[in-house]
Amino acid sequence: MHTSGNNATSSVTVPDDFRHLLEQPIFAHLATVRPDGSPQGSVMWFEWNGTHLLFTHTSGRQKARNLRREPRVSVHFVDPNDPYRTLEIRGVVESIEADPDAALYRRLQLRYGRARPVFDADQRIVLKVLPTRVITVDGGLTATEQVVRQQLIAQLGARTPDT
Amino acid sequence: MHTSGNNATSSVTVPDDFRHLLEQPIFAHLATVRPDGSPQGSVMWFEWNGTHLLFTHTSGRQKARNLRREPRVSVHFVDPNDPYRTLEIRGVVESIEADPDAALYRRLQLRYGRARPVFDADQRIVLKVLPTRVITVDGGLTATEQVVRQQLIAQLGARTPDT
Repeated sequence: MHTSGNNATSSVTVPDDFRHLLEQPIFAHLATVRPDGSPQGSVMWFEWNGTHLLFTHTSGRQKARNLRREPRVSVHFVDPNDPYRTLEIRGVVESIEADPDAALYRRLQLRYGRARPVFDADQRIVLKVLPTRVITVDGGLTATEQVVRQQLIAQLGARTPDT
Repeated sequence: MHTSGNNATSSVTVPDDFRHLLEQPIFAHLATVRPDGSPQGSVMWFEWNGTHLLFTHTSGRQKARNLRREPRVSVHFVDPNDPYRTLEIRGVVESIEADPDAALYRRLQLRYGRARPVFDADQRIVLKVLPTRVITVDGGLTATEQVVRQQLIAQLGARTPDT
């Protein structure tokens, strides 16, 4: 985003003050890459088990095909109380496994309050994503962007007496 | 998403019942591809001028580099009143132009209610995206996914008397 920002960090652990986002039934924005090299965005249910992000999916669909070819993903979570606070988890798909009892799907139905009959348990799969980088944003800018902005402000401040 | 769905369509025009999302100061989820082939997600301010999506950005940052190499994008908008209603605009970056007066940035500051001093007008650029496909989702599934689900339900229905 393009606003003044503060307090941006990156690591491979989820900071305490952003972890609550993963506990809430909000929607994850998953970015993947199609076989033709173009990007694909998806709005997803998710579960965080403390070490991995889990997504329910079905085996024949586009995202599964994308991820078998290009396992790297970027996942964004936006704080429902402040859209300028975001958590990004970059990672790789560590496994794509069958979920014949649709166990994850049923857990997510309950988590998101939409329990429905399951007709496609035999096609249900679990996408398991291992985080490789965690980037938090507070105020709309990442740490790098914040540094650049501060440099610009400093330059402007230094020029001000002459203008 | 992974729930029962209805009324999904795709075209290159934005359907009347989703166009209001583009009039609101909600946040766009932009998916791009990095030079190393991995996906990048971003949470963005945007403007819709009736034919193109416009994003404000600065020239030195990662997204600009991504888009000069791979101009295809996917942009998601989620209905703030119903997260199972989403609008996806796929498109290509038609131009990346300087915005020396930061005119778009200032318009977006007003639209999003965060007017601030502008320190980086000389670096501001406008990313102009031409839609190539519009996909709307109502109820959590696209049209294709809905057909697959209906087929599964029909198969189950046909089997029911035997089980």
